[in-house]
This record gives sequence, structure tokens and C-alpha cells, in this order.
Amino acid sequence: MNSIKFTKMHGAGNNFIVLEDLDNRFKDLNLLAKVLCDRAFGIGGDGILVVKKSNTADIDMVIINADGSYAAMCGNGIRCFAKYVYENGIVNKELINIGTGDGIKIARLVVKDGVASEVTIDMGMPSFEPDKIPAITDKPIINKTINIQGKDYILNTMLMGVPHTVIIDKLNNYQVEEGKLIEKLSIFPEGTNVNFCEVLNKSEIRVKTWERGAGATLACGTGACASVIACNNLSLVEDKVLVHIPGGTLKIEVTTNGVLMTGPAVKVFQGETLEMNI
Amino acid sequence: MNSIKFTKMHGAGNNFIVLEDLDNRFKDLNLLAKVLCDRAFGIGGDGILVVKKSNTADIDMVIINADGSYAAMCGNGIRCFAKYVYENGIVNKELINIGTGDGIKIARLVVKDGVASEVTIDMGMPSFEPDKIPAITDKPIINKTINIQGKDYILNTMLMGVPHTVIIDKLNNYQVEEGKLIEKLSIFPEGTNVNFCEVLNKSEIRVKTWERGAGATLACGTGACASVIACNNLSLVEDKVLVHIPGGTLKIEVTTNGVLMTGPAVKVFQGETLEMNI
Repeated sequence: MNSIKFTKMHGAGNNFIVLEDLDNRFKDLNLLAKVLCDRAFGIGGDGILVVKKSNTADIDMVIINADGSYAAMCGNGIRCFAKYVYENGIVNKELINIGTGDGIKIARLVVKDGVASEVTIDMGMPSFEPDKIPAITDKPIINKTINIQGKDYILNTMLMGVPHTVIIDKLNNYQVEEGKLIEKLSIFPEGTNVNFCEVLNKSEIRVKTWERGAGATLACGTGACASVIACNNLSLVEDKVLVHIPGGTLKIEVTTNGVLMTGPAVKVFQGETLEMNI
Repeated sequence: MNSIKFTKMHGAGNNFIVLEDLDNRFKDLNLLAKVLCDRAFGIGGDGILVVKKSNTADIDMVIINADGSYAAMCGNGIRCFAKYVYENGIVNKELINIGTGDGIKIARLVVKDGVASEVTIDMGMPSFEPDKIPAITDKPIINKTINIQGKDYILNTMLMGVPHTVIIDKLNNYQVEEGKLIEKLSIFPEGTNVNFCEVLNKSEIRVKTWERGAGATLACGTGACASVIACNNLSLVEDKVLVHIPGGTLKIEVTTNGVLMTGPAVKVFQGETLEMNI
């Protein structure tokens, strides 16, 4: 029985176990994630973020979900990761190149007295091309009305890291669980996340996200980006927008080079495992 | 921002944050439990177990549930608590008197090389008296058939710490969620926990518990006791019974002085809080 040291962090409620593996001592990260993320018998978390040496970037991040599946990238996770490698002296830069399963991502830290309170991540460009989303339709899905079980939904669908559909309306008109009906529409062969989005004013929106395969979430970073893109596209908001989500607030900026997401990252506790079979 | 040191433990999956408060420094334990037990923003747990000095016993245990409510006693929690105070040198005895909201409980540790792997707790006596449960009926509820939505349920109801109803049958005949229908029957003014129980042989049963107000659980210590009592009453099992529950296995022994519950207690990890507002 080995003891593992770890730090538990969250980004707007999306919570992760951060582990250092600079010497590649962990043999089976998928199994480790399942055991550690169990909320009754383990530490508990949405996933593990593993710090690895990189050949191409300043540092590599490996994300494994709580169910043991691999995740290429996670907007909330990478903010926590960037704060961790900076504050723990692994990367001594405030602009960090992080290798992920979705290529190298750039993280910019807001540092005060050695503490990184906020992190900005370049989330890349969205695409409305049906083939890329993928969506089985001959033209982009922009303000497209569909009727499900007698109720109209107006969809805006894009690829923003993963497939995202945005419904812009009063949040009171929906239960976030209605996302399940849209997630599995046959036009979305790989499913879609569903974001219910209310415009409060030109620089502020409120978003609740239904994550495909996972359900209602406290925070979906790519969903916040997609929601701002959809609203910006329809000239409902400016380029800089505060996005209020159940787990906190993210700042999204649309630029010609990509979407910048700024948000919190918090170290909740640090510890070491005791009588766990790992 | 203060840092708090803690140990996370579980007893058959029922999981707790153990805190030492021998000097009464924590001012608001109810708020502390809510903040620490939050699984996204805090440590995560079903409740906190607070170690307090005692005037009447070897040590006092205060239990606060994750929602901030007070709990008088918890069979899985007290096993963890007993292991903790022994292994951490707070009480140097293998037979420990623990003060709880339900009086003084006696814990007996199985110690090997300084490690307490199992703990036996005297859970006290059950009562079938309707007034004590409470149940609005003129005679004890033993093999009493009721029909809900066209389905028959055969009930055995007692007070075992809290109100417990046991249904003895093949587990495959029920979803544990059906407990919700029985929990709220008007004959149970304070509700009832509901245990679906299958007899495997004279010394082994399988139990799934629906906890009033909480739902399906991995482990309910009093529910395991109540299930053995109900089966023993009907001569379906002997006095010593292994109870298989979703989170593990408990050993229950019916004696003339009370019900003895023996089960595991595991230290999962220890740590200290970092950037939490506590």
C-alpha cells in the first residue's frame, strides 16, 4: 500500500485531484483515476490532472475522468493545472505552454504575492461547419427551430472543443434536464452538449449547461465560450462578456485569433492517501 | 483564512471528515459541516465527526450531517471515530466509552500491530412498540401486508435507533426507490427507513436500505441491525449474521442485552485545507 500526495482543486466548482508524475511512476492512470475519484471510498473528484514532463511544451497535462476515460482537454481543469505548476515551483513563468491531448494551450496567470487567483486560457476557434461538429444537415445550425414533444427550441450549434448547442431565451422557460432530449437528436451523431443561455445585458449572460453523457454541471468552460459565441454572432452581446454559471463566473473574450476564457482556480486542500489499495 | 487538519474515513462507504476539537476552538460546527462536506467546493463527506473532551465518557463524538443538521448517533460513523481516537493516541484503550447524542456507546476495537481493522459497537435494543417507533397502529407491525399502487408489501417495523421497516423477500422483486412510497405512509408520522432484505441462508442476508430523507445508501448500520432483528424474530436466521450491503459487509449479533454490530473502518486520506473560506 503506497501513499500518494495530492492537491484537490476546483475551477468554478468543476473539481480535480492534481498529481505529480514527473518521473512516470504511475503505471495505470485510468485505474488510478477511478479509485481516487470515488467519492465514498476515495478522495472524490470529477477527474485527475496529472503533471508530466513535456518534450514540446513547458509541461504536459494528462486528464482522466472519474470513470477512467481519457479527456483531451478541459477548460476548468487547465486553469487549476496552470495555477498548480506555477505555485508549486514546477514552471516559473506566468505565461505557460501546456501540452494537452488537444495540442498546446497557452495559460496566462494573474499573479499577486506569488498566488495565481485567475487564469486565462486561449480556447481556440469555434466552427459552425456541420461536418466538423458533426451535425447531419446541409447548412449551419443558426437560430434553427425544432419541435420536440410539442415544444419549440431554437438551436445554435457549433464545435467549440466539443459539440455545443446554445438555446438563447429566458432560463425560466426550461429545465436543464430538457438538454437530454436535444443531446440525442439524430442530427447529432456524436451527441451535443446543450447550453440554456439568457442575455442579461450586452456584457453579461447566464448559462446552464447539460453535458452530454454527464448531465447538469456546475461549470462547463467550453459551454460558456460557445454561449458567448452564439450570442455575439447574433449581435446580442459585445466581445467581452461575463458568464454566470451555477459554480461561479467566467470572463469570455472573443478575438479574431480565438476565444479567451478567464476564470478562478482554487486550491481546496492538500493531503496524502492512507489505507487505500492503490 | 485558517487551515484545518482533518482525516477522511469511511465505514462500508458511509464517509466522514474527522476533526479534532479538544480545545473547543470551532465556533459554528453546523456551518463548518456544510462547507467542508460540499463535494465540489469542499472536502466532501456525508458528515463530520468531531472529537470533543467528555465529562462522562472516555471521549465525546459530535456528528453533523452534510446539510448542517445534527445527528444523535451513526453506527458507521462511530466505528470510524473509535478507530481514529485509538490510533491517533487520544484514547489508549481498546474498549472505549463514547459519549453521543444517544447516550454513551461502547466500542470494542480489533487491534493488530497498532491498527484497528474492525470495530464492534453495542447498538442497544430494538422496540416493536408502536408508540416508540412511532407508528399509528394498535398492535406491532409484524408481517403486516399493505398494498400500494397495486403491489403488496409485507412490513416488519421497529425502532432501532431510528424507525426501520424491513421487507423480507427476493431483492430482485424491488427497486430500492420503492422505499419512498413506504417512507411516507400516513401510519409513520416521522417517516421510516425501509430495508429490502433477502435471506441467503441461516447466517447470511443481503440488504438494500432506503434512508428517509436521503434515499438509497451504500451502508446503513441501524438498517443492517433492524434487518437481522426482523429475520431473527421470524426464525429465518440465527443470532450471528453476516449482512451484505452495497458498501461492504457488517457482522450483526443479537444478544439479550442488545445488538452488536461489527464492521470495517478505513482511513482514506489525511490533509489540511488551503484556500477555503472557513
